[in-house]
Amino acid sequence: MDSDRDQRDAEDVEAAGLRSDTGRAIGFSDAVFAIIITLLVLDLRIPEIPPGGLLHALLTRWPVYLAYVTSYLYVAVNWLNHKSTFYRIRCADRGLHWANLGVLFSVALLPFVTAVVSQAVEVGDRFDEGVAVALYGLVGVILSAAWLCLYHYLSRHGELLQRHVTPRFFAVERLRALLGIMAYAVAGVTGSLVSVPAALAVLLLLPLFYGLSSNGFYDLRRRLRNR
Amino acid sequence: MDSDRDQRDAEDVEAAGLRSDTGRAIGFSDAVFAIIITLLVLDLRIPEIPPGGLLHALLTRWPVYLAYVTSYLYVAVNWLNHKSTFYRIRCADRGLHWANLGVLFSVALLPFVTAVVSQAVEVGDRFDEGVAVALYGLVGVILSAAWLCLYHYLSRHGELLQRHVTPRFFAVERLRALLGIMAYAVAGVTGSLVSVPAALAVLLLLPLFYGLSSNGFYDLRRRLRNR
Amino acid sequence: MDSDRDQRDAEDVEAAGLRSDTGRAIGFSDAVFAIIITLLVLDLRIPEIPPGGLLHALLTRWPVYLAYVTSYLYVAVNWLNHKSTFYRIRCADRGLHWANLGVLFSVALLPFVTAVVSQAVEVGDRFDEGVAVALYGLVGVILSAAWLCLYHYLSRHGELLQRHVTPRFFAVERLRALLGIMAYAVAGVTGSLVSVPAALAVLLLLPLFYGLSSNGFYDLRRRLRNR
Amino acid sequence: MDSDRDQRDAEDVEAAGLRSDTGRAIGFSDAVFAIIITLLVLDLRIPEIPPGGLLHALLTRWPVYLAYVTSYLYVAVNWLNHKSTFYRIRCADRGLHWANLGVLFSVALLPFVTAVVSQAVEVGDRFDEGVAVALYGLVGVILSAAWLCLYHYLSRHGELLQRHVTPRFFAVERLRALLGIMAYAVAGVTGSLVSVPAALAVLLLLPLFYGLSSNGFYDLRRRLRNR
Repeated sequence: MDSDRDQRDAEDVEAAGLRSDTGRAIGFSDAVFAIIITLLVLDLRIPEIPPGGLLHALLTRWPVYLAYVTSYLYVAVNWLNHKSTFYRIRCADRGLHWANLGVLFSVALLPFVTAVVSQAVEVGDRFDEGVAVALYGLVGVILSAAWLCLYHYLSRHGELLQRHVTPRFFAVERLRALLGIMAYAVAGVTGSLVSVPAALAVLLLLPLFYGLSSNGFYDLRRRLRNR
Repeated sequence: MDSDRDQRDAEDVEAAGLRSDTGRAIGFSDAVFAIIITLLVLDLRIPEIPPGGLLHALLTRWPVYLAYVTSYLYVAVNWLNHKSTFYRIRCADRGLHWANLGVLFSVALLPFVTAVVSQAVEVGDRFDEGVAVALYGLVGVILSAAWLCLYHYLSRHGELLQRHVTPRFFAVERLRALLGIMAYAVAGVTGSLVSVPAALAVLLLLPLFYGLSSNGFYDLRRRLRNR
Repeated sequence: MDSDRDQRDAEDVEAAGLRSDTGRAIGFSDAVFAIIITLLVLDLRIPEIPPGGLLHALLTRWPVYLAYVTSYLYVAVNWLNHKSTFYRIRCADRGLHWANLGVLFSVALLPFVTAVVSQAVEVGDRFDEGVAVALYGLVGVILSAAWLCLYHYLSRHGELLQRHVTPRFFAVERLRALLGIMAYAVAGVTGSLVSVPAALAVLLLLPLFYGLSSNGFYDLRRRLRNR
Repeated sequence: MDSDRDQRDAEDVEAAGLRSDTGRAIGFSDAVFAIIITLLVLDLRIPEIPPGGLLHALLTRWPVYLAYVTSYLYVAVNWLNHKSTFYRIRCADRGLHWANLGVLFSVALLPFVTAVVSQAVEVGDRFDEGVAVALYGLVGVILSAAWLCLYHYLSRHGELLQRHVTPRFFAVERLRALLGIMAYAVAGVTGSLVSVPAALAVLLLLPLFYGLSSNGFYDLRRRLRNR
């Protein structure tokens, strides 16, 4: 009897727990983003130089810095995206946590592929550079796909959203993720076939465009409506 | 007199402090989980390759990626577990903090054993691979034992739990931890005796099964009761 | 009709979201500062010594410790600065987030340049040491410029500040950032032309002076007014 | 006129800001402690082994594991100490922030000295081992001294403490810090003169004793009073 009631109480809380507030998911994600964006700097390190060769080593490593800036911008845009997504979420269930962990998993691959690109540029082999840029593009595709999963999940679970947010909002966001998949696929493939600096420049512009356009589309829609 | 009263006041606060809210334990644990899950990516790094050998190096390192995915899933399941455990805790005393630090200690070993497995697979020595997989299994056993301690402590300290949670809930959870101990022991031992890819596949499935079953059992119980 | 209303609701939330509270920016920044200040310790590591040479290696590496203390103080002063800046901010928009990400980007370069200085001192080449100190000064200039951007943005967006803070406050703060740009430029240039220990000493004193003076100016102004 | 009032408003907020709530200091400190306790695991890594030598390498590295466990316990005790200290603090001023940064600075040295001890034990030179243990003891002394500064500051600034906490509480805590200074000095000196395993065992017991005794003294005092 008593133990039966105990059991039921525990399950009521568990039911509530399955749709808990998003505080811990946000704190955990912020820490992961912070570590990833800071790990990138580890690859700037000068490996081995002859005495007196520091200035030359610093100046010839400009593609490494470009890769660093590109990845920093990319992680930053993802964090801003994550922030504005979770701002619209009221509570989280198990599925949303896994979708979020998928995004974090994909972002965590960025220091790895950035290091692969840096290393390939350092060795200077043309074939390796192409492979490295293609790998970077592949991770961009995976990351966009992870966002697509998250948006798709949210578009099907309106009960997790803030009161004023409609599932339709995230249904539309899926288009942005699809654009990302295509853009990184094209950048990776063509980039690896043309030239590494050109590919890095494209990959540098992608987060910039992504960050600016999302804001721009929004402002545009707002201005048109407010007229 | 006055100093006596001062002393007593301080002790009243200290008594309250011994059973403080769980905010800092959660923030600290989230940061530790975030660092551990991100440190794993450091082992993906390509160590040294001849020029033009990047594609080959990337393709032949698939067991390293499998180890990475396995460990990522394992840490993720532990974080979800930690979240749903602390969701049921109202306040923390010294003993609970140490039990929690024991869980974090065991989780922190995962990047180390993942690196040992990656390194053993890289060298390719059959004996080393067996040792590495056994070590991974051993850490799985230690981690499950740490959860067992935490659950056992909570089952004995109902005064630390949320109002609607009964100590019996955590008494039952101990069974899951015991299952984990046995599963990782079996996986480590048989895995090291059969083959490393097979063992990695088993270790990959364990967190998946663990994550799904805990949810499944719960839903099953709920559905049966709600009929 | 209905979808039109859905759309509008979503946009109202988005408009609110564009000027959200600063909680996540602060949590993310704190984590980044914490990682950067802790990454510095990785460069203290003794690389390779002959048996019995530990004491000698420890004693001869004093410039490395000086660089470590300098960078620790520098990051600490930046964190205190960040804390007192965001204490005056009520909500954040997209522009403020990017200005903040610019500051974090510049701070994240400190472990890199600290490592370059340590490495140059270890190799002992006079020319490399000069280059390393100049690079350290350059990052100091970049960091001060990032603060200048942040202060300038806040001086133009009074609507983001706490009720009692005026944009004029941050207009004045820009002077401190300008002083920082000049001080680090001078320290880098002259330091690289005179001697590395002297330059490190100057770079050590800069954050001390910066931390003390900002407080001192404030106290001075307050005392004069309260008379 | 108006600008004068603006200026005054800003200063009022600044005055409030100088004694702000402790939220950010706690979040920052938690992140630093989490990183330090997790960085320790990086030194467990097996450096270079001949094929088939993994088991032997793992078994012969037991002093490294002992050093790891010792340092983990030491950081954990420091975190618990930090938590119970800041639990008694109502607000923080500039001086308290610097005292806290001093504690974090000293704790951040632990992964470094733990790595030095591990490395010395690996090389196996008796003289180096003594130097490494002495260095570990020295950092223990520095860390205890940092706590002494923090406690001393709090004993002189009762206005920063929670309403029910008296400055006398922290005046008494200074004794514990003094004991720590002496204990680590003795452990470092005698340890380096006797044997490294013995010294590591002593350094392992110190945090255990420290953690248990502080609780024990408190419980003892409480029990005597409640009779």
